[in-house]
Amino acid sequence: MGHNIKTVWKEGMAFDSQLMGGNIALDANEAVGGQGKGVTPKQLMLSALSGCTAMDVASLMKKMRVEVDGFDVSVEGELTDQHPKYYKTVKVVYNFEGKNLDQAKLNKIVNMSIERYCGVFEMFRQFADITTEINFVEANVGV
Amino acid sequence: MGHNIKTVWKEGMAFDSQLMGGNIALDANEAVGGQGKGVTPKQLMLSALSGCTAMDVASLMKKMRVEVDGFDVSVEGELTDQHPKYYKTVKVVYNFEGKNLDQAKLNKIVNMSIERYCGVFEMFRQFADITTEINFVEANVGV
Repeated sequence: MGHNIKTVWKEGMAFDSQLMGGNIALDANEAVGGQGKGVTPKQLMLSALSGCTAMDVASLMKKMRVEVDGFDVSVEGELTDQHPKYYKTVKVVYNFEGKNLDQAKLNKIVNMSIERYCGVFEMFRQFADITTEINFVEANVGV
Repeated sequence: MGHNIKTVWKEGMAFDSQLMGGNIALDANEAVGGQGKGVTPKQLMLSALSGCTAMDVASLMKKMRVEVDGFDVSVEGELTDQHPKYYKTVKVVYNFEGKNLDQAKLNKIVNMSIERYCGVFEMFRQFADITTEINFVEANVGV
């Protein structure tokens, strides 16, 4: 199984990246000659990482009947100083919010994604040092 | 230097990925429980690869005074069969279109991106076998 995408030059540093399911406007920052009218390519790697593991979590929560009010996955990536600049250290933070969160199951779910299912995690492990953190925010229960 | 992004759960397998410069709607295909209302995370890796090298090319064309009518960078990625599924083979194709294209300089520019500047290429080299191809399409010159 595979994927095909195409990225087409518009003008300057602006591109239209054509994926299955939608297009993404890419542009460089003004500091490097762009106009900031889109996202920068490297960030898409972090978005891929967060989205891949987040989809595993959503899917496993459904299968394991775990409910939350909401969750997000944030990623911080630090680049090397020298060209070619790549993400050398990456921190992935899972934030779950809800009432009476089943923390044991949620920990298990996150670990299943990291260790078994998430292909983007597997790719990142080949070049980055990755740390992960899981936070639970208990929603206030009304009196 | 680094980047921070956040991906927030909406419903089902749908997420809003929040990057500097814009948001991206992520969703899984219907075959795996999504509604196809966005792009899938893994494809973003290919978009990152094409966008990174395409921006190098745009920047170097300007510096080296090479003109083209247009260009695009397409990427085909083949996934492994087993979990965690990652891109094992990747093909990157550069297509340049214009009149009297300076093929020697364009070849040099692409190689400078691949070998020296493109950080996403450097990351992909750690897990994928990458092949590249450069095509030149000479625009018809009016009679």
